[in-house]
Amino acid sequence: MSKNRILVAHADLAQFIVAAFVAKGMAADDAAIIAEALIWANLRGGDSHGVVRLPRYIDLIDTGEMNPAARPVFALDTQARFVLDGNRCAGPIAMMQAIGAASERAKIGGLCVGLVRNTTHTGAIGHYAQWIAERGCIALIAVAGIPLMAYHGARVRSVSTSPLAIGVPTGRDPLVLDMATSVAALGRLVQARAAGGTIPEGWAIAEDGKPTTDPKAAAIPLPLGGPKGSGLSLMFEVMAGLLSGAPVLVPALGAEHRTRHTQNAFILALDVAAFRPPAEFAADADALIDVTKGLPRRDGFEEILLPGDRGRRTEAVRRATGIPIPMSTWEALGRLAEKLGIGLPPSIRNE
Amino acid sequence: MSKNRILVAHADLAQFIVAAFVAKGMAADDAAIIAEALIWANLRGGDSHGVVRLPRYIDLIDTGEMNPAARPVFALDTQARFVLDGNRCAGPIAMMQAIGAASERAKIGGLCVGLVRNTTHTGAIGHYAQWIAERGCIALIAVAGIPLMAYHGARVRSVSTSPLAIGVPTGRDPLVLDMATSVAALGRLVQARAAGGTIPEGWAIAEDGKPTTDPKAAAIPLPLGGPKGSGLSLMFEVMAGLLSGAPVLVPALGAEHRTRHTQNAFILALDVAAFRPPAEFAADADALIDVTKGLPRRDGFEEILLPGDRGRRTEAVRRATGIPIPMSTWEALGRLAEKLGIGLPPSIRNE
Repeated sequence: MSKNRILVAHADLAQFIVAAFVAKGMAADDAAIIAEALIWANLRGGDSHGVVRLPRYIDLIDTGEMNPAARPVFALDTQARFVLDGNRCAGPIAMMQAIGAASERAKIGGLCVGLVRNTTHTGAIGHYAQWIAERGCIALIAVAGIPLMAYHGARVRSVSTSPLAIGVPTGRDPLVLDMATSVAALGRLVQARAAGGTIPEGWAIAEDGKPTTDPKAAAIPLPLGGPKGSGLSLMFEVMAGLLSGAPVLVPALGAEHRTRHTQNAFILALDVAAFRPPAEFAADADALIDVTKGLPRRDGFEEILLPGDRGRRTEAVRRATGIPIPMSTWEALGRLAEKLGIGLPPSIRNE
Repeated sequence: MSKNRILVAHADLAQFIVAAFVAKGMAADDAAIIAEALIWANLRGGDSHGVVRLPRYIDLIDTGEMNPAARPVFALDTQARFVLDGNRCAGPIAMMQAIGAASERAKIGGLCVGLVRNTTHTGAIGHYAQWIAERGCIALIAVAGIPLMAYHGARVRSVSTSPLAIGVPTGRDPLVLDMATSVAALGRLVQARAAGGTIPEGWAIAEDGKPTTDPKAAAIPLPLGGPKGSGLSLMFEVMAGLLSGAPVLVPALGAEHRTRHTQNAFILALDVAAFRPPAEFAADADALIDVTKGLPRRDGFEEILLPGDRGRRTEAVRRATGIPIPMSTWEALGRLAEKLGIGLPPSIRNE
């Protein structure tokens, strides 16, 4: 009976995630915010940032790295800029509060920079960039956290795989770019490990710092474009962590040897209406989409994709047919459900 | 007597650049701003953005694409955000005015977003990010312009090689990241063409859209990380061009077939003091530099470099010993000098 994967309706999966956090003492409203962030990633095909993370999130509560009852507090609070301290809350809770504040304030003053500090894994940050763009603002969001990727030339984990997301309102769906500063995301390495075979040179180094094309040996991702990717990652540590007063890399890499999981975020929201009539901007954005989609293609490309296209299409399918969950993840969720005394979500089918 | 390159003192080279623009009717003060931008790049080893551009800049005046008498005008002018219309002025003139305004306003209100539109080639934008960082602000600058690079999957020039620069004040020299969104800058392709041999796969495609490793056939640079680099470039067209009301890609790629050279810029300045006591921030930045420089290195890396390190060292050498100019560039400058009726700068020596 057990096949390769289970299909689960996204609403059922969300309810399961909520139940898991509620079992750990979290308010249901807060749990729903995390569920929405994880499900957003699963719906759009970003499965490495979806429900697969749930057991780890629950672990973070058990180790005290995430506080399920924490309330974010403004450490700096002005019209155009703020610092929101997450107090070790779940990342999506601080992020949703921050993007709400950033876009509201941008609507009043034209722009806002919000920093989030001392939170935990923020999930797929395209979620937040899209949310801001849906409110008529351009969003630029960068997240920094614990060392996972090798800084250019280093043989050890030394910077985060810090994602960068940019969201843009258009006359249609928002454009949403969401990219890591590594060549290949950690999730891609995990997938390659499961699939076997080799990975391209330049994706990762082994624990001993040597280049490898063996996905089983590949341990530390390498930065996109060498000094470019690791330079961006270093700058995001500065813009999100140092500027908010919550450095992560020095405590982790220096004498303190801090291993606690933590993330910081930088959020810029720009109200389009504060610069141009939004209808004119939207018309220009739509024209840019059309001209880009119509570009002559290279051999092997069936279509030109704009940032966010692929995720939106996957979402349409998965809303209708369910979210596919690999059997290994499903089994991990089963163990979690048992531990927490909650039921697994009903499955649509095995396939 | 003619050897491979000529060494010229940077002050003499700057004076020559000023004389060239003055010969085309530009005010000496404006010409000095352009000279400073070109010399900054030459001093730091960014020779593709240095004096080699001068003949092209003069061409832009001859074709009317650059107006040597233009004065930038504010099209939007508020405390925290502005749009500066360059009126086809030389890029550095609009950029210096814009970074002056952005950092002044950031010092008052904590942050400022300035857009520059309708200007010409801005030069090496690390120059402007460094300038802002030297005034205690974090700078994020992106420039977009005419299509030069293939959008991911396209076989034609369809986005700019849009550079991104981030500048950060520290307790020592600023950190200055300055990167293109292409795998290899156009200048690298030109150098490879001169040097012969092959270029790595993935750097560029030929005019017919086919991949090539022949630097002579390589015509169109490819984006860094495929959809990442071209996604960033598309977003910079939006943030610099569409938001300021001056789209470039649609007029160039659409029915209008506009070929006029033009650039737009996005500038964010954040006053560190509006977020944290600057001395604390500087101490954290210095600690981050130290811990990064001390990382264990991979085989083949003699040293871990921080963004801006290499340029600063080259500058120290070139300030002392002069700027090396390849013979082909020197000859082009000689032809230009003759055309304009000005003298070439004295050379320190041929080598």
